[in-house]
Amino acid sequence: MTVLALAGGVGGAKLALGLSKILPPERLIVAVNVGDDFTHLGLRICPDLDTVMYTLAGIANPETGWGITNDTSETMLALENLGGPNWFKLGDRDLATHLERTRRLDTGENLSKVTKALINALNIKHRVTPATNDELSTIVETRQGDMSFQEYFVKESCLPVVKGFRFQGAESANAAPMLQNCFLSSDLELVIICPSNPFLSISPILAIPEINSFLVKTKVPVVAVSPIVGGQALKGPTAKIMNELKLEVSSSAIAQFYNKIISKIFIDTADGNEVAKIEELGVEAIVTNTVMLTEKEKMGLGNKILSETGIEF
Amino acid sequence: MTVLALAGGVGGAKLALGLSKILPPERLIVAVNVGDDFTHLGLRICPDLDTVMYTLAGIANPETGWGITNDTSETMLALENLGGPNWFKLGDRDLATHLERTRRLDTGENLSKVTKALINALNIKHRVTPATNDELSTIVETRQGDMSFQEYFVKESCLPVVKGFRFQGAESANAAPMLQNCFLSSDLELVIICPSNPFLSISPILAIPEINSFLVKTKVPVVAVSPIVGGQALKGPTAKIMNELKLEVSSSAIAQFYNKIISKIFIDTADGNEVAKIEELGVEAIVTNTVMLTEKEKMGLGNKILSETGIEF
Repeated sequence: MTVLALAGGVGGAKLALGLSKILPPERLIVAVNVGDDFTHLGLRICPDLDTVMYTLAGIANPETGWGITNDTSETMLALENLGGPNWFKLGDRDLATHLERTRRLDTGENLSKVTKALINALNIKHRVTPATNDELSTIVETRQGDMSFQEYFVKESCLPVVKGFRFQGAESANAAPMLQNCFLSSDLELVIICPSNPFLSISPILAIPEINSFLVKTKVPVVAVSPIVGGQALKGPTAKIMNELKLEVSSSAIAQFYNKIISKIFIDTADGNEVAKIEELGVEAIVTNTVMLTEKEKMGLGNKILSETGIEF
Repeated sequence: MTVLALAGGVGGAKLALGLSKILPPERLIVAVNVGDDFTHLGLRICPDLDTVMYTLAGIANPETGWGITNDTSETMLALENLGGPNWFKLGDRDLATHLERTRRLDTGENLSKVTKALINALNIKHRVTPATNDELSTIVETRQGDMSFQEYFVKESCLPVVKGFRFQGAESANAAPMLQNCFLSSDLELVIICPSNPFLSISPILAIPEINSFLVKTKVPVVAVSPIVGGQALKGPTAKIMNELKLEVSSSAIAQFYNKIISKIFIDTADGNEVAKIEELGVEAIVTNTVMLTEKEKMGLGNKILSETGIEF
């Protein structure tokens, strides 16, 4: 029996790590957002896949939220000296991932196959898949005009006021083969939407028609973890974006956002007062600690989700 | 008045450095072989241009003949750990050159313009140009079949027996703009074929019709420095290739090879006994020290060439 976790970067990776410490490799698939992927300096960079891989491999840099811990910056410094662009930081060891990914893609391998090779090389036992092998790019519609995800997120530091999003290519994208198999098999017993940014990390996954229609129709429970704690996002621009989209910055608004596909939402103890409001939406709200600073907390949240959804582990 | 040096990698770079210490920036153009250029790990790599640039910038690694001195290898080690290809070594700082070159090429800049930007960033005052901005790839025809230059040179360590060479794309390649201007102006007073591998480094340049026909027709003196010293090549597979092509490994054979375009050849004191044989070909042979270990020797050879061809400096 299989648990499927949908994840973006840091928050998703943390819960994926917790789940990986509880579930054996054959029982967990982590499907990762590719809307942030881009080509830079000739290299294909997949920030969310990298964060999930590095986190599961135990080499993620916890201070930055990207890259490899204790990585060096020789190439980046030399690139700066050459007058090259330094807005997207690339550590020396991190670079190897992008070089090898680009090399494999250039030989005709799809992103699933490339990811599998990298996962194996990093000695990760659990399965990780991109949500799709097809081109899918998040475009952030802002008051300053449309921009690519990296332009918005890194170059502009999330400062432009957001009006909306679109996911270029999503309409014609297929779910990655591992997801297609997962949807067809009777093994799947739970889908977890990790506490990633709903707009930037989860929406691009849900924008793939095959994934969306499966989640809407399936009888397998689909649950979410709210990325909002006490009216704030733990990391990243989720709260800022919700404000700009005239949404209340609350777990209720998150429950509303996922309403069509989830039956349960896990919210932080700081938001216990929102239970009634969420349950009015027909979504069960479960109050627990959703802040995952330690490994114990990551496993604790994973345990709670599996217990509350009746998954044996 | 301008001196044009045609160069490949290490040997050519050494003489170019010597000339750059004698001639002011406006009086020297170094035109570099691009037949070895290739795309690896998504990056455009131009080994001869890099060697010339790093040598002129004073940062070339003298021990390896490629790369930057005291460079680190964090990315390469990480790439090896990912199971990626390690046959082409890339230092961390060296990588920045390939990343920036690839980035600029991707924006639509041609190789001349990219090279100019890199040269400026490396604070090199003299002009360096690729021989052409067009695709030109050296194919080594061996007993084991055809192979790309890098496959032959690095992957197979020059071990396969050579039957011949061809320069894919040369027929339709144009000379780089800086060379075209140089050919049209009355400023050019000397062309020097540096002591690079005639088959692998100089032939690809001469295979460009516009360059070849200029050199055959011009009244400007064209001279060569023999890369053979005492029946051996100082570096690289020149002697091995000459053997395999059933050529005598001698400066006479080099003079014969360049016979159609040169009026003078500079040969090493070790080969003084070849003067008569060379002059029978109608090529003047000038005996001097062609081994350039020190900066003084590099400048010495440059001085000798300019003096013997009547160039004021």
